[in-house]
Amino acid sequence: MKAVVYQEPFKVAVESVPDPTIERPTDVIVRITSSAICGSDLHMYEGRTAAEPGIVFGHENLGIVTEVGEAVTSIKKGDRVVMPFNVACGFCRNCLAGYTGFCLTVNPGFAGGAYGYVAMGPYRGGQAEYLRVPYADFNCLELPEGTEHETDFIMLADIFPTGYHGCELAEVSPGETVAVYGAGPVGLMAAYSALLRGASKVFVVDRVPERLAKAEEIGAVPINFEEGNPSEQIKEQAGGEGTDKGIDAVGYQAHGQKGGGEEPAIVLNALIETVRATGMLGVPGLYVPADPGAPNEEAKRGMLLVSIGKFFEKGLRMGVGQCNVKRYNRQLRDLIITGRAAPSFVVSHELPLDQAPNAYEKFDKRIEGYTKVVLHP
Amino acid sequence: MKAVVYQEPFKVAVESVPDPTIERPTDVIVRITSSAICGSDLHMYEGRTAAEPGIVFGHENLGIVTEVGEAVTSIKKGDRVVMPFNVACGFCRNCLAGYTGFCLTVNPGFAGGAYGYVAMGPYRGGQAEYLRVPYADFNCLELPEGTEHETDFIMLADIFPTGYHGCELAEVSPGETVAVYGAGPVGLMAAYSALLRGASKVFVVDRVPERLAKAEEIGAVPINFEEGNPSEQIKEQAGGEGTDKGIDAVGYQAHGQKGGGEEPAIVLNALIETVRATGMLGVPGLYVPADPGAPNEEAKRGMLLVSIGKFFEKGLRMGVGQCNVKRYNRQLRDLIITGRAAPSFVVSHELPLDQAPNAYEKFDKRIEGYTKVVLHP
Amino acid sequence: MKAVVYQEPFKVAVESVPDPTIERPTDVIVRITSSAICGSDLHMYEGRTAAEPGIVFGHENLGIVTEVGEAVTSIKKGDRVVMPFNVACGFCRNCLAGYTGFCLTVNPGFAGGAYGYVAMGPYRGGQAEYLRVPYADFNCLELPEGTEHETDFIMLADIFPTGYHGCELAEVSPGETVAVYGAGPVGLMAAYSALLRGASKVFVVDRVPERLAKAEEIGAVPINFEEGNPSEQIKEQAGGEGTDKGIDAVGYQAHGQKGGGEEPAIVLNALIETVRATGMLGVPGLYVPADPGAPNEEAKRGMLLVSIGKFFEKGLRMGVGQCNVKRYNRQLRDLIITGRAAPSFVVSHELPLDQAPNAYEKFDKRIEGYTKVVLHP
Amino acid sequence: MKAVVYQEPFKVAVESVPDPTIERPTDVIVRITSSAICGSDLHMYEGRTAAEPGIVFGHENLGIVTEVGEAVTSIKKGDRVVMPFNVACGFCRNCLAGYTGFCLTVNPGFAGGAYGYVAMGPYRGGQAEYLRVPYADFNCLELPEGTEHETDFIMLADIFPTGYHGCELAEVSPGETVAVYGAGPVGLMAAYSALLRGASKVFVVDRVPERLAKAEEIGAVPINFEEGNPSEQIKEQAGGEGTDKGIDAVGYQAHGQKGGGEEPAIVLNALIETVRATGMLGVPGLYVPADPGAPNEEAKRGMLLVSIGKFFEKGLRMGVGQCNVKRYNRQLRDLIITGRAAPSFVVSHELPLDQAPNAYEKFDKRIEGYTKVVLHP
Repeated sequence: MKAVVYQEPFKVAVESVPDPTIERPTDVIVRITSSAICGSDLHMYEGRTAAEPGIVFGHENLGIVTEVGEAVTSIKKGDRVVMPFNVACGFCRNCLAGYTGFCLTVNPGFAGGAYGYVAMGPYRGGQAEYLRVPYADFNCLELPEGTEHETDFIMLADIFPTGYHGCELAEVSPGETVAVYGAGPVGLMAAYSALLRGASKVFVVDRVPERLAKAEEIGAVPINFEEGNPSEQIKEQAGGEGTDKGIDAVGYQAHGQKGGGEEPAIVLNALIETVRATGMLGVPGLYVPADPGAPNEEAKRGMLLVSIGKFFEKGLRMGVGQCNVKRYNRQLRDLIITGRAAPSFVVSHELPLDQAPNAYEKFDKRIEGYTKVVLHP
Repeated sequence: MKAVVYQEPFKVAVESVPDPTIERPTDVIVRITSSAICGSDLHMYEGRTAAEPGIVFGHENLGIVTEVGEAVTSIKKGDRVVMPFNVACGFCRNCLAGYTGFCLTVNPGFAGGAYGYVAMGPYRGGQAEYLRVPYADFNCLELPEGTEHETDFIMLADIFPTGYHGCELAEVSPGETVAVYGAGPVGLMAAYSALLRGASKVFVVDRVPERLAKAEEIGAVPINFEEGNPSEQIKEQAGGEGTDKGIDAVGYQAHGQKGGGEEPAIVLNALIETVRATGMLGVPGLYVPADPGAPNEEAKRGMLLVSIGKFFEKGLRMGVGQCNVKRYNRQLRDLIITGRAAPSFVVSHELPLDQAPNAYEKFDKRIEGYTKVVLHP
Repeated sequence: MKAVVYQEPFKVAVESVPDPTIERPTDVIVRITSSAICGSDLHMYEGRTAAEPGIVFGHENLGIVTEVGEAVTSIKKGDRVVMPFNVACGFCRNCLAGYTGFCLTVNPGFAGGAYGYVAMGPYRGGQAEYLRVPYADFNCLELPEGTEHETDFIMLADIFPTGYHGCELAEVSPGETVAVYGAGPVGLMAAYSALLRGASKVFVVDRVPERLAKAEEIGAVPINFEEGNPSEQIKEQAGGEGTDKGIDAVGYQAHGQKGGGEEPAIVLNALIETVRATGMLGVPGLYVPADPGAPNEEAKRGMLLVSIGKFFEKGLRMGVGQCNVKRYNRQLRDLIITGRAAPSFVVSHELPLDQAPNAYEKFDKRIEGYTKVVLHP
Repeated sequence: MKAVVYQEPFKVAVESVPDPTIERPTDVIVRITSSAICGSDLHMYEGRTAAEPGIVFGHENLGIVTEVGEAVTSIKKGDRVVMPFNVACGFCRNCLAGYTGFCLTVNPGFAGGAYGYVAMGPYRGGQAEYLRVPYADFNCLELPEGTEHETDFIMLADIFPTGYHGCELAEVSPGETVAVYGAGPVGLMAAYSALLRGASKVFVVDRVPERLAKAEEIGAVPINFEEGNPSEQIKEQAGGEGTDKGIDAVGYQAHGQKGGGEEPAIVLNALIETVRATGMLGVPGLYVPADPGAPNEEAKRGMLLVSIGKFFEKGLRMGVGQCNVKRYNRQLRDLIITGRAAPSFVVSHELPLDQAPNAYEKFDKRIEGYTKVVLHP
């Protein structure tokens, strides 16, 4: 079958690889109809990870079940399913507690597994014609038959739940004000989720006009951080006080003002300023324990200078980490089915599999409006 | 009346000051029968704050009501009451949400007020014969008549709820394992609270043998960090994995190995190591946004180097800040009344008011077993 | 001043009564600009309670502060405020826990007080020119100056929070399906709140076409119970299973099919059928411990025949009771201010005070579209 | 193998039945070392259910794994394991939400499955030499090797979690007062759990002196309902007010005063009296939708006369239903391992399998102190 294979930094190719097969009785095989490219794929693409050539990318996957292991009971051939980017067993202590992003058994020695990602276990990605899905009863979410809402549903594999996870970590509740840093796909999904949850006002901070325009379109207040301290801009519009809650949808590759380099803790510290005393921060934006490309020695070891004094004085709380997609994907699916949510508004391009190399290149350069690409193998 | 008055660094005196009076109809006056010296009083005592000479110390206060403002309805003359160290109004947005440690009205321009503490508002302390209590209906907790449990009840003003707050921030629940860093009064109260809440195993980290012995006495497992990496010692006894939850009862004036100076982030980073993926940290230990005595420039501004990368990878959550005493003091009182809790085991000395200067000196030097002093004016 | 005074069953009059005055230092006086008539006022109007002639009605009140007691600190003359229908002290054990509808001090011998209501304490109602508000710092919610959103804001006194309370008791969360029984003002507010909280599908059960039309207008699915078993109608549209959550906005004066009399438990039992196993019921609809007009002896004592066996088998949970308005009114106010909620869509009539007698009569008969009347004294 | 087989009302026999085998790749076979007799087995034993002759009893099972299906990954031959009485799949919507007592797939057409119980699916019981365990990765809880704590651990299959579930439904938290109705094994476990969770005072209501003595032994306050209205007795000892929380560990086969017959709603209504306004009720005690032996027509259909009026006036909440054992068993196991809990105090008899018929007879008659029997095949 054809698959998107990593070759070397800044180079992927569509190659022939062996078809996946049922390896364990709990597996199914899915013929992929949609697989999205994620911002986190670019970390590998840019050679900023330990990813080795040969890896098949793709952790946002949706398709039709073509083969079913004999222990699988709730999924059958022909079912249309979308999978969380997390691979999870469903029975370890963390999965039982709903922390499926931190499964203790699928990737021994580490808490958490995923498809097509370096260090996340031996699971091939889904930017390919077929995908093996382990623990299929647990990992497949059933979708209505047909092709309706295809680009909405593919958002359920990662970014819609991940944005929502930011709200969940920050416990966003009706009537609250929320500041979201970052208007990339995850930031927009976080703002969209905050509004779905009944926030009274959502601010979205970025500097790219197109992204800020998207934020405004969905009902958020755009804040351009190139036009002044974002925390102060927000406070001016939030009655002097900060917001009730804050979401970091940027992570460690944050940039300050134009022309400056990366400042890995700038968003965390801005959020500590932005959120009012007793507030909460949700951090779906990625931070890593080892970053060879970091701007200083401490940051290379994942050590960042954080305003802990201010954080304490304000009595804030902070929740971080990868999304446990399984915890939210059914409910979010139902919002799509009933027409109450349509997250595909972030999708910029839908392309066949063989255009993946080109799509990676343009998405990596953020040119020609490439913000969220869905591949249809 | 007589009161403990701050004179200059390392010097307090018992002096005559004017008796407090009813200033607002919602006030009461309390004749103090017990007022404890807190570790945080030492920050002022050592001259490490902006406290000016003349301030009357004492935020842990218990006594008998002697005078009642005309708007007070639930408290009457003769009632025995204990007050949270927080002064709170009961009707601002934060008080309504239970965040009485972050009251928005009693100390304008800042979220939170307290008795006898620099920058926490114009409220005189209770290491004195009498104390004015604002918003008395809200701030007084009624106690059974008489003198029973006096030293247990005075713990309700601050350290018992503060230790408990660590458990609440970390959401310690039955069957969980907990690591508490620090075996001072707050650390011991945190460990004690964790056991009260049904923790299956509680580790307490310190290096002072007497403190560790106390921890063991209440049923915790003592971990001497001078005898090896505490995180590793704990993991060995917790099945290889870390603990479910962690509590920082040390704060910014933390020390590493003997002979080293202060390392303000050492406990936070140790906790990130100690707690297992998906765990939670509760941080009642104090961190400050400005610390002139800090070991480096960043720490002077409250900026600490924290393992954010690891924190994210493990998907941890962290809650920090001053205790909202009002949120817990009634329930904890009831545990004392029914004999299910007896927090006075941390009290080392009970002294008359005039021995306060001597007590401060010895407590500050941690000599002669001075760990928790209760003054009886 | 002029006020709406109860005379005898089915008769109220606008009479002159003494102006209210500051009775305690914590009081304020409010000049009423809006006071709504509530369905529960009709219980008294119809003589179905122990209300004595002379009582001034009105527990949904909004206006401008004209006088301020000397202990009040956060409210000043000229402030525009709306009051919860609950009178609450803010410092008793129940108020502290957020149960302001069950205040232990304002109405001695009973948990809970209200304005202008029989057995709810000595608090005159606000269908009058002026109103005394006790514990004003606690009971007044500040509104933006001016007259904007007047009819939206008056909904904050009772029915918007009460509908929302149904969702809170049932823990309605994003993506869930909800069945609301009753499309009167509270039922509509419950459905509206469920949608605000992100429900994926909300069913509203009633038999009055105009009410069902309103439900449909706000995005809910109308279910006419005269056209077939409502539980079955809902299950057909909810994939065979019942809904995740259910809300009873009817209470004990429920009717079955046309022509039948009252069946006080019919809605509770219908909800037990309608909601799927593991679901939750929120019951803001009123049930009373003594109802002289009830259809049988048991019901007269508040004893109803409930499908406890089915309730247990399904593992349901149920929360009931009067709304603690204070718990929600600020957040809901902010949704109105930011334009995300406009609950005034339920208001059918806005009238001057002197038309109250006529309004009561027509509202009681449910004629000429009288569903929710706001009086403007 | 030998197994306890139901013959007819009031008669079980130890018979030879075929050994269980691996039927699906997700199964394991367990050699039973302990299987307890449960009060709910007596419903079948007394012929008060639709149970047909031939059913093998036993839903509280512990033993050693002897055979492992090929899809099982976390359990291996030789492991010592205890199983929840619930059979659950781990991947349906209810299991995912933690409601493993309401699994949607293991017993089609009904929410919930169990071993050896009528209408709970085709799962043979464990009062036998061997047991087939479906979805073994999900349903087996690993225990430490050896035989230590055998009678404590067998309590994890049902009654310890079930008692704890009562506390969870009632959200029992530190410092609260709790009333438990029923001092049978589940009631004692509920009281024991309430104390483990930090309750300040727990009342246990029953009329059997031996049971009340047990309650007192573990630190609860015994209330003999033959000596006066239990609600009033409790209020006298709880400061006039009722308790914060209440637990019904009796269910529908409740009795009133000596000599009276069954009064199925007596405990529910007593709890509504006993618990203070704003409180919560947890009901692990069984209620059924069809009870041919009930004292009246309504009760035969599971319809009970409940003080809904009072329930509403007090603003109570109530949670009911079978325990989701999986939700608590690991944490409770850890309390046993660390010596913080020892639930075996309720065990009255440990017997070999062949004495089961005799044990059933005496347990059913409640003679010779038979309160909780553990069979060791």
